[in-house]
Amino acid sequence: MSFFETQGKQIHYESDGKGRPVLICNGIMMSTKSWIPFVPSLSEHFRVLRLDFYDQGESAILEGETYTQDIQVELIKVFLEHLNLEKVSIVGISYGGEVALAFAAKYPQKVDRLVVFNSCSYTNPWLKDIGRGWIKSGKTRDGQHYYQTTIPVIYSPTFYESHLDWMKRREAVLLPIFSNPEFLDRMERLTLSAESYDIRPDLQKIIAPTLVVSAEEDYLTPIANQEALVKELVRGEWIKIPGAGHASMYEKPYLFTSLVIGFLLAKETTYTI
Amino acid sequence: MSFFETQGKQIHYESDGKGRPVLICNGIMMSTKSWIPFVPSLSEHFRVLRLDFYDQGESAILEGETYTQDIQVELIKVFLEHLNLEKVSIVGISYGGEVALAFAAKYPQKVDRLVVFNSCSYTNPWLKDIGRGWIKSGKTRDGQHYYQTTIPVIYSPTFYESHLDWMKRREAVLLPIFSNPEFLDRMERLTLSAESYDIRPDLQKIIAPTLVVSAEEDYLTPIANQEALVKELVRGEWIKIPGAGHASMYEKPYLFTSLVIGFLLAKETTYTI
Amino acid sequence: MSFFETQGKQIHYESDGKGRPVLICNGIMMSTKSWIPFVPSLSEHFRVLRLDFYDQGESAILEGETYTQDIQVELIKVFLEHLNLEKVSIVGISYGGEVALAFAAKYPQKVDRLVVFNSCSYTNPWLKDIGRGWIKSGKTRDGQHYYQTTIPVIYSPTFYESHLDWMKRREAVLLPIFSNPEFLDRMERLTLSAESYDIRPDLQKIIAPTLVVSAEEDYLTPIANQEALVKELVRGEWIKIPGAGHASMYEKPYLFTSLVIGFLLAKETTYTI
Amino acid sequence: MSFFETQGKQIHYESDGKGRPVLICNGIMMSTKSWIPFVPSLSEHFRVLRLDFYDQGESAILEGETYTQDIQVELIKVFLEHLNLEKVSIVGISYGGEVALAFAAKYPQKVDRLVVFNSCSYTNPWLKDIGRGWIKSGKTRDGQHYYQTTIPVIYSPTFYESHLDWMKRREAVLLPIFSNPEFLDRMERLTLSAESYDIRPDLQKIIAPTLVVSAEEDYLTPIANQEALVKELVRGEWIKIPGAGHASMYEKPYLFTSLVIGFLLAKETTYTI
Repeated sequence: MSFFETQGKQIHYESDGKGRPVLICNGIMMSTKSWIPFVPSLSEHFRVLRLDFYDQGESAILEGETYTQDIQVELIKVFLEHLNLEKVSIVGISYGGEVALAFAAKYPQKVDRLVVFNSCSYTNPWLKDIGRGWIKSGKTRDGQHYYQTTIPVIYSPTFYESHLDWMKRREAVLLPIFSNPEFLDRMERLTLSAESYDIRPDLQKIIAPTLVVSAEEDYLTPIANQEALVKELVRGEWIKIPGAGHASMYEKPYLFTSLVIGFLLAKETTYTI
Repeated sequence: MSFFETQGKQIHYESDGKGRPVLICNGIMMSTKSWIPFVPSLSEHFRVLRLDFYDQGESAILEGETYTQDIQVELIKVFLEHLNLEKVSIVGISYGGEVALAFAAKYPQKVDRLVVFNSCSYTNPWLKDIGRGWIKSGKTRDGQHYYQTTIPVIYSPTFYESHLDWMKRREAVLLPIFSNPEFLDRMERLTLSAESYDIRPDLQKIIAPTLVVSAEEDYLTPIANQEALVKELVRGEWIKIPGAGHASMYEKPYLFTSLVIGFLLAKETTYTI
Repeated sequence: MSFFETQGKQIHYESDGKGRPVLICNGIMMSTKSWIPFVPSLSEHFRVLRLDFYDQGESAILEGETYTQDIQVELIKVFLEHLNLEKVSIVGISYGGEVALAFAAKYPQKVDRLVVFNSCSYTNPWLKDIGRGWIKSGKTRDGQHYYQTTIPVIYSPTFYESHLDWMKRREAVLLPIFSNPEFLDRMERLTLSAESYDIRPDLQKIIAPTLVVSAEEDYLTPIANQEALVKELVRGEWIKIPGAGHASMYEKPYLFTSLVIGFLLAKETTYTI
Repeated sequence: MSFFETQGKQIHYESDGKGRPVLICNGIMMSTKSWIPFVPSLSEHFRVLRLDFYDQGESAILEGETYTQDIQVELIKVFLEHLNLEKVSIVGISYGGEVALAFAAKYPQKVDRLVVFNSCSYTNPWLKDIGRGWIKSGKTRDGQHYYQTTIPVIYSPTFYESHLDWMKRREAVLLPIFSNPEFLDRMERLTLSAESYDIRPDLQKIIAPTLVVSAEEDYLTPIANQEALVKELVRGEWIKIPGAGHASMYEKPYLFTSLVIGFLLAKETTYTI
């Protein structure tokens, strides 16, 4: 468990393995802990850096503040400076994928490869209104209410139905967390921080080869928006996971690991004639 | 505005046009009024019957009762007897599509054609948990909360984003309704009534030609479940609407009308060699 | 069997039923006869007009000539004049859908509704090269060769495999035709006539409500091209048939009939708030 | 350039890099040379083995013989024995993917991981008839005819249209080869060898984790058949490449390389609660 300080705030991160640095960016409800099952495979090939964004995991709580995702973008920059890293590969999912894309657009020289799962280039007003509902649900302080409002739509119906026991255990783990007012306030701030997200004008600044991974049953990140994202990327590649939803890494952990390792390690092959 | 009585309860319906009877079955939050824009086109060709299920529109409120969708199935039966109709074509969407399918499986001789939009043959446990969240949201009596929890996911992100003004007007119409405790209690009972829905064992009893209409951005009725439904139907046909969501009839009203009229009027054409 | 003459050429057509005129435009290998199974259902509602284009069915053979699809567009114009029809609804599939779209773009006032199946707004160079292979295959005068080159790709693998007997009977019917040098020469001219087809600059001239029907296993009309077509149409609607291929009308005859009848009869419904 | 002999026949192969052996299996028209652009990236991580099947590249020509794909399955077995390899990872595309699947089903202990692109578990009668057309086309000895019959359908219309110059150069390379009677006879035998391919009864014998990669515009390997394949695999994972066709490795070489490297290197991650 490592920490560094920036602007008087403690930031938590983890570093595993050696060699080429790969930063993993959390989805909104996640923390560095969420990635534990993936570290053994990823750290065989990379120095795996996990970072808790502001208001996530063990990092500083921004009680009473309002902010945008740009605060997390700048956090990545400070984090890399703290580690004396000039360049990094970034993997992100959902909220983390958006921060990763925004970082790569703002600091293109600092990113050599990018893999984003279930991510868009802007917050659709549709999603914004869904987020508003999540916040209202959190304000009830009823953990099960928050669970039922947020979790089912994060998973594909295919996974949810075929892993009911898994989901029930997950619910048991999440209920106390989702009943914690401090956690719910963090979620509210994080949700609000994403409302204004829109990097469409800057997409072509991203120079790193970028893999966009969509899940066919993702009911939070509109696939049409992901298609539009890929089309704007200078070096974008696109892949779809059938039968998976927004929580693609939990639903298809082996595929998740494979896609990350493969895209980061492969040379950018072309076939010329 | 017409009424009939059954078991001491008043049931509301509307009848427009002449000729072959076609019954329209409401989605869960809908009422006979929701179909007004469709009546002029449909009633050129059919006697259009609109029915408020129990706890919908102007029909009896079942305060304090618990029931399953079978109560609505039986209501259709009584309604047809009231009108002295031996056979009817049925069109249903979502909750109404499920009641229609259940009716056609229970009383196959009474249905000559069936068109269901955004409907499944059972309630996926995933959807059940989403419904539980809706109920919790309703219990807050906060109309906007109920709106944000239920409405965005009913519309495709494509429609929602491209019809923001339409959605805002819709929100203005719905907020007072969604703030009405009686309405929210009705919604709770209706939502619960669908939890045990499962007609998979009876699907092959349906003998009427049946058109299943799926919307590609329907985030409430899993498309895999709709595909499974079609495969079990003896005379099922399947069609998909791209760029539409669960509220397909509002998002694509012209297509909705076309599909209904066409499937009900066409002879069951085959191409033999 | 009816004929009329234009520029010294005999043109064959059929007229069934009364009332509103609906013109059916053949795919490239089809003729008025191909539609016989559809006439009983369609002619209940419309005056169904079937027309053999130049080099099709019983119409004039343009031996030794080269031409573009515009010759067929003009043929429709003359045909409507012959029948004293100012306006018509048009239904077309593949080659016939393209002629229909081109006609509606060139003479927008003469078309009140349009339904096109498996049609694009231009001939993709990919399809052009496939067509060149068809022509080479025809030049061998080996009917089975022409059959194997053209027919399997016209049907979805799903239909082909599940209707093997049907396909074998179809093959028996087609082999003598596909061994006929005159027929093969007609096919060559018709195929070449489509090579330069490109109405993309004129799509917005089409003012008729237009239903674009795509089949998900259509391996000749790229679905991306059909999506692009719909997006350019001022009043376009889009629907997809799962499990069907390029010969959608043979594979899903009931759906074909339903879609045509419904889209032509429905009022252009909107849902305003 | 390496060779070994089996049953009096010379077999050609290439070996690049060190470490864990990965065998690449050619599609029907391919040879070891087709993979040259991929070797630099793959051989950084594996000992890359490329093998010309019978009637491919520099391997023995089976003039006058008829055989099934099982002859290639046995060839892999002999090849591994020749190299003293007990276990291998296999990557195959199309014909090569089918041989790989058949090998893994027949000799499950010899395969530790499997990646198949654009492959099915049996030859659909639809594809069989398409193959018959290819053979007839080859018998004309007209290279351009063979090109037009086989090549466009191998590429997605999206790629073909956006890489017209690439395709023209490819055509120039292929025309002399496709005009060579010996090559065309080889293709005929290889095509016929796949007609009886059907390992559906044996799929569950495959114990290696298997990645099935489908391309959404693959017009030769029905996607429904690939879905059925995945569902039968004990440890199957599925991924789809949008905008690519049957020649996925040429159309998306960077993705191809990434998927192979990632799936072979990743630990089989699970996420347990």
